[in-house]
Amino acid sequence: MIDYDSSAALKLDNRTLRLWLRLLGSTKLIENAIRGRLRESFAITLPRFDVMAQLYRCPTGLRMGELSALLMVTGGNITGIIDQLVEEGLVERIGDDQDRRVYTARLTDAGITAFQGMAGEHRAWIDGLLDGLTEDEQQQLSDLLLKLKDTLHEKFGE
Amino acid sequence: MIDYDSSAALKLDNRTLRLWLRLLGSTKLIENAIRGRLRESFAITLPRFDVMAQLYRCPTGLRMGELSALLMVTGGNITGIIDQLVEEGLVERIGDDQDRRVYTARLTDAGITAFQGMAGEHRAWIDGLLDGLTEDEQQQLSDLLLKLKDTLHEKFGE
Repeated sequence: MIDYDSSAALKLDNRTLRLWLRLLGSTKLIENAIRGRLRESFAITLPRFDVMAQLYRCPTGLRMGELSALLMVTGGNITGIIDQLVEEGLVERIGDDQDRRVYTARLTDAGITAFQGMAGEHRAWIDGLLDGLTEDEQQQLSDLLLKLKDTLHEKFGE
Repeated sequence: MIDYDSSAALKLDNRTLRLWLRLLGSTKLIENAIRGRLRESFAITLPRFDVMAQLYRCPTGLRMGELSALLMVTGGNITGIIDQLVEEGLVERIGDDQDRRVYTARLTDAGITAFQGMAGEHRAWIDGLLDGLTEDEQQQLSDLLLKLKDTLHEKFGE
């Protein structure tokens, strides 16, 4: 694979652009690895895993808008994933009496069990993918990313 | 927006999982901001900008497989984007005499000019998005991400 950072034609005298490309590159490498393993081990797509992970973390359920915001993607695909999870009995819809177009999605007991079966393995994959850094480096990186994320949320007024 | 890190129901005693979620979260926040600004300022999609950026960095052109690898996505969409760029005169296809199915895509002069017009602004956006970190912090983060990326490439044998 051609490496973005070392491409001969790439002249990046700009610190921030290089930082951004490294951030994007690391994230995509890990995301693609996780995507492939989820498919091989559990025959599940990454967006579907992400939806279940978010629902797992909010036992009271989430509205579609909340789910979109958490996943930082727009709604179309999420609705389709939820429809399929409902059909398979892994998610249930809880309606809003005030507004029939609004509903909350929540994992069923079967959904919780299914997610837990995958979550342990997912966590071990992440451990393995990040183990090229020492614990100290992981902590430093995590602290810097938290600061970055906080400043981004401030910029966007969220 | 509900924040992944501070969600009340979220119990992450796992350093590496938290690190991964921060990496993913920062990347998506920046990527979504860039996507929105490219659309507003230049009426261009992010994948199209990314394809042009990669071609700009390789003046001799890129084969479709190389472009997919650099962008870390699969080929389907890229071919469609290239088709459109060719139609607009921003990209040219250079055939392989040995294999007519293989071709190299390269920016035309018009494509180079069009990209340069966007690249300066893109760079300024990145500067602005990352300016919540000090220069030292940016450098530390960049160094740690380079190490992470290198160890990931080693794992995947690339």
